[in-house]
Amino acid sequence: MTSPQFLSDTARVDDAAIQALPGSRKRYVEGSSADIRVPFREISLSPTRTSGQDEENPPLLVYDTSGPYTDPEAKIDLRKGLTELRRPWIDARDDTEFLDGPTSEYGRRRANDPMLAPLRFELTRTPRRAKSGNNVTQLHYARQGIVTPEMEFIAIRENQRRQALSTAYSGSQEVERILGQQHPGEGFGARLPDEITPEFVRREVAEGRAIIPCNINHPETEPMIIGRNFLVKINGNLGNSAVSSAIEDEVDKMTWGIRWGADTIMDLSTGANIHETREWIVRNAPVPIGTVPIYQALEKVGGVAENLTWEIFRDTLIEQAEQGVDYFTIHAGVLLRYVPLTAERVTGIVSRGGSIMAKWCLYHHEESFLYTHFEDICEICKRYDVAFSLGDGLRPGSVADANDAAQFAELETLGELTKIAWKHDVQVMIEGPGHVPMHLIKENMDKQLAECDEAPFYTLGPLTTDIAPGYDHITSGIGAAMIGWYGCAMLCYVTPKEHLGLPNKDDVKTGIITYKIAAHAADLAKGHPAAQRRDNALSKARFEFRWEDQFNLGLDPDTARAYHDETLPKDSAKVAHFCSMCGPKFCSMKISHEVRDAYKDRTPERGLESDAEVVRRGMKEQAEKFREQGGHLYREV
Amino acid sequence: MTSPQFLSDTARVDDAAIQALPGSRKRYVEGSSADIRVPFREISLSPTRTSGQDEENPPLLVYDTSGPYTDPEAKIDLRKGLTELRRPWIDARDDTEFLDGPTSEYGRRRANDPMLAPLRFELTRTPRRAKSGNNVTQLHYARQGIVTPEMEFIAIRENQRRQALSTAYSGSQEVERILGQQHPGEGFGARLPDEITPEFVRREVAEGRAIIPCNINHPETEPMIIGRNFLVKINGNLGNSAVSSAIEDEVDKMTWGIRWGADTIMDLSTGANIHETREWIVRNAPVPIGTVPIYQALEKVGGVAENLTWEIFRDTLIEQAEQGVDYFTIHAGVLLRYVPLTAERVTGIVSRGGSIMAKWCLYHHEESFLYTHFEDICEICKRYDVAFSLGDGLRPGSVADANDAAQFAELETLGELTKIAWKHDVQVMIEGPGHVPMHLIKENMDKQLAECDEAPFYTLGPLTTDIAPGYDHITSGIGAAMIGWYGCAMLCYVTPKEHLGLPNKDDVKTGIITYKIAAHAADLAKGHPAAQRRDNALSKARFEFRWEDQFNLGLDPDTARAYHDETLPKDSAKVAHFCSMCGPKFCSMKISHEVRDAYKDRTPERGLESDAEVVRRGMKEQAEKFREQGGHLYREV
Repeated sequence: MTSPQFLSDTARVDDAAIQALPGSRKRYVEGSSADIRVPFREISLSPTRTSGQDEENPPLLVYDTSGPYTDPEAKIDLRKGLTELRRPWIDARDDTEFLDGPTSEYGRRRANDPMLAPLRFELTRTPRRAKSGNNVTQLHYARQGIVTPEMEFIAIRENQRRQALSTAYSGSQEVERILGQQHPGEGFGARLPDEITPEFVRREVAEGRAIIPCNINHPETEPMIIGRNFLVKINGNLGNSAVSSAIEDEVDKMTWGIRWGADTIMDLSTGANIHETREWIVRNAPVPIGTVPIYQALEKVGGVAENLTWEIFRDTLIEQAEQGVDYFTIHAGVLLRYVPLTAERVTGIVSRGGSIMAKWCLYHHEESFLYTHFEDICEICKRYDVAFSLGDGLRPGSVADANDAAQFAELETLGELTKIAWKHDVQVMIEGPGHVPMHLIKENMDKQLAECDEAPFYTLGPLTTDIAPGYDHITSGIGAAMIGWYGCAMLCYVTPKEHLGLPNKDDVKTGIITYKIAAHAADLAKGHPAAQRRDNALSKARFEFRWEDQFNLGLDPDTARAYHDETLPKDSAKVAHFCSMCGPKFCSMKISHEVRDAYKDRTPERGLESDAEVVRRGMKEQAEKFREQGGHLYREV
Repeated sequence: MTSPQFLSDTARVDDAAIQALPGSRKRYVEGSSADIRVPFREISLSPTRTSGQDEENPPLLVYDTSGPYTDPEAKIDLRKGLTELRRPWIDARDDTEFLDGPTSEYGRRRANDPMLAPLRFELTRTPRRAKSGNNVTQLHYARQGIVTPEMEFIAIRENQRRQALSTAYSGSQEVERILGQQHPGEGFGARLPDEITPEFVRREVAEGRAIIPCNINHPETEPMIIGRNFLVKINGNLGNSAVSSAIEDEVDKMTWGIRWGADTIMDLSTGANIHETREWIVRNAPVPIGTVPIYQALEKVGGVAENLTWEIFRDTLIEQAEQGVDYFTIHAGVLLRYVPLTAERVTGIVSRGGSIMAKWCLYHHEESFLYTHFEDICEICKRYDVAFSLGDGLRPGSVADANDAAQFAELETLGELTKIAWKHDVQVMIEGPGHVPMHLIKENMDKQLAECDEAPFYTLGPLTTDIAPGYDHITSGIGAAMIGWYGCAMLCYVTPKEHLGLPNKDDVKTGIITYKIAAHAADLAKGHPAAQRRDNALSKARFEFRWEDQFNLGLDPDTARAYHDETLPKDSAKVAHFCSMCGPKFCSMKISHEVRDAYKDRTPERGLESDAEVVRRGMKEQAEKFREQGGHLYREV
């Protein structure tokens, strides 16, 4: 525990988190009103060198989760927190009121404890809550046919493709022929429109297929959406533990995580000063923050699960809702009668929340207060717009336990709870496994869609094997890509430290990049209309030896450049037509260009003229002829 | 280029490569004769601590590719090479003869060049070749109904399960209940018998569904098999380039690669002293070595593709066959008429061999000598038992180019060439992509099985997205796991340096571990009868907080231990019932045990007695009842 004196004086942002990414700059696309400014990252590219005149390569706009941290215009001061982007929208709805202060007993106690002064974030505003009788969830608005600014913001943000095709971001016809290519994909029932309109966003939310986590007490968020018919999202976990704890470290992990692509962050702190740690994270987070309130509740009762009560839990929900937590993981599906189903498992119950509630249920021999008070929890959530992430407390912790009776029994209960949440217009997504061998993954997705009426699925991995501790970002990245393809809306990352220890900043980055790969591979396989353009742009840069562009178009330009420079550090190598892998004579891409040139050089009697276009046409004719022949070689063997 | 004076004096093995893996020792299982000694790695485990007496955990036998390097009994001297394990078997067949010396012109020239003395491996024997008129391939023997010692060796080696269940490797009934669990799996037509017999191996080889790469001039190999009805294998590439070169480095990469699980190694050297580098690798390799002969042939003509001739290539094949190369990648499927099909690709031709041959074809405007002389190549291969790895010279180099006309046209030709190779009883496998989005992967596998009559498929990745240079071991590990599940027999690794530079030792290890994960995930999903036991053993150790066992059962014990110790270095932590991720109060597994204990403590009126067995039965009854009720909650909502 290394908390310095008065964080409110000393806290400063991680320098590494506020540099613009190489070759990139912040771009805002404006919506119907000036206060709807949707952030993108614009990657500028160098022209393609040709024998004739150089050919321009249009810049690429990519989805940007890093918030103001990568905007040189923005003034970052962790002690002040981020600007309240959504405040005018929330004000305008005029259905909320500012409270005198925290209404939770615990929140007040922490606020008034002088001992905590050194750790406290100096919040200058009081919490908001829905005016009596009001429901302030995005689901409630959507069902009333209201398109909120949040929905419009998201439509622009998700609509990569339209942006990509606007003149400023388009190349010549030939360049667009390459960049515009897109495999149709297999969506397994996903509906991915060519253009995402605000109305489409509203409808998806209204029908429960997508959620917009945005607590009215977290106005700093840049709205984002989680749903099968949008880009696949990823979550990064952080949080201290009793063994390792420091508020600044966790804030650094947050700013580091969103820099590399975390769409949401879960604060899973279980150590010291959970309340204060959370406040620092939420105030400085441009992405939704999720928590598992039972962790803090357990802290409040000294870690003795059976001493947990509804009153303590309720107070914790209000405490966190008033801080601005955007979604709660609630393990309300762990029923007394399901616990025995875990008795013969190889790894029992591996969800922390699940094991805590199972223990409580057994001790009291009754259903948990999460379940018996579920409607009361809905009443709280709808007054702050906190979304549910219904926890899978009985998820498998080993491939042996995958898809067993305990897991699927709980999933059915989560389906029942989904309907109750919807009855209250509370947004809900469903958490999923866990450890699952590849051939059993799809059953998880299909069953979730059926049991939970297409509410968004949010899975941890799944890990496809148990035999690689130290590499579970990879064992799970495989499963994550597959379930994302099948329809999972958000993938919860796993870091290399899974099962072994608390992740540090490097682990967070490795986990995030691995899951960005999984999410993007899923978007490609689903045939998301905007997905393949980035692959095409990078492959074009690669084929044209535009090394800097290849680095900058990648998910991690720093690492790509470092690996390349390990053997060829000189600037001259950045334009060389080879790398150290093959060397100059063996670069297939270099030879491939010579092949194309060879065609150009052909004389007419060889059947091809020298103009590149004609050549291409000529080649296509040859190709046609070949295909007509059925592509066979030995007609007389 | 840093070759020391007289490697034959200075060469020494990488110390890191000859340590036994933690908690492991070498075990040999004897076959029908004393000279059939099949190596395994035995991982010894600590007992499970219980309230009563401790419960033994049987040691686990795992497939071991590391050869004598991890056997403390073995005397390793790179300058002498490995012992000729297979020599007596080859002698006994009496169908080969020792030559006076290399019969290739190039081999003789290198042997007689005094300038090369410092680099030369001092080989004390001359090459072997089939006696005139003989065919010495394993396929030839198999088709004659002969079960070779190689086949028996492989049957024992692949038969993990029988070994695992022999008394020495079995635990109590309850332990076996846990370790013996196995999901049925989905094999997509793979036939995985419960027990693998030598006759089963013979039949799979005879029918062309599997190959045993084992050149008679590489008697140092421990026989292994590549086929869809056996464990999925992985290949590690190494080799120098004009930019980076040192014989010792490449030998170190080989010993490092097999330590972590490489089933075969391809030497893709394109730089200086290819001949000598290969000799050092082959003489010290207990796994099959593959090459791409066209690389060296191109070196011989100064890197000018159009100057390549059949004579130079033929001499290169003989040179390498007499050194002991076990399989040749031959890009004989690149036909003149296919080249135009690549004209509109985003990344043209990305196979080095493919681009070289395409250039040759265009320049001479005729089919390549690889194709026109294919039967001559078969004649060479059958005299040394060199297997074909028919190269996919037109594989896609970007997701945009996946599954296109060029790729599939070549695959059809590879199918034709397969039949020709089989006509000569030459073993053959087929190389595959490349860059392919997830939803297009299965088509590759299905088409390959159909076009090539179930000859083994050997794929590079495929990479499921192009946007992560620096992480292509992961983008491709996803695709590799999937295609392995669908039926691919061997996965060619990709390292983090792919597209960026020549891999170093660390990159080799990362690539190998990633691909071991992919191969094992595939075995699990296929339902390989022996696969899940290791997962179960590791998960059991994890659930019982046997940290050392958890590390040692993993693919990379060193990294797992290092990650754990980063936050909890003390020995006491190795028995602690938590790690730094959750800390003591939040360890779900710890709580899960308390949950089980809670049942034990119940008094009869609570409906359960205290005996653990009875408890389990009681729980099962509750579970049954619950399932009978249909698993529903609200019967009166």
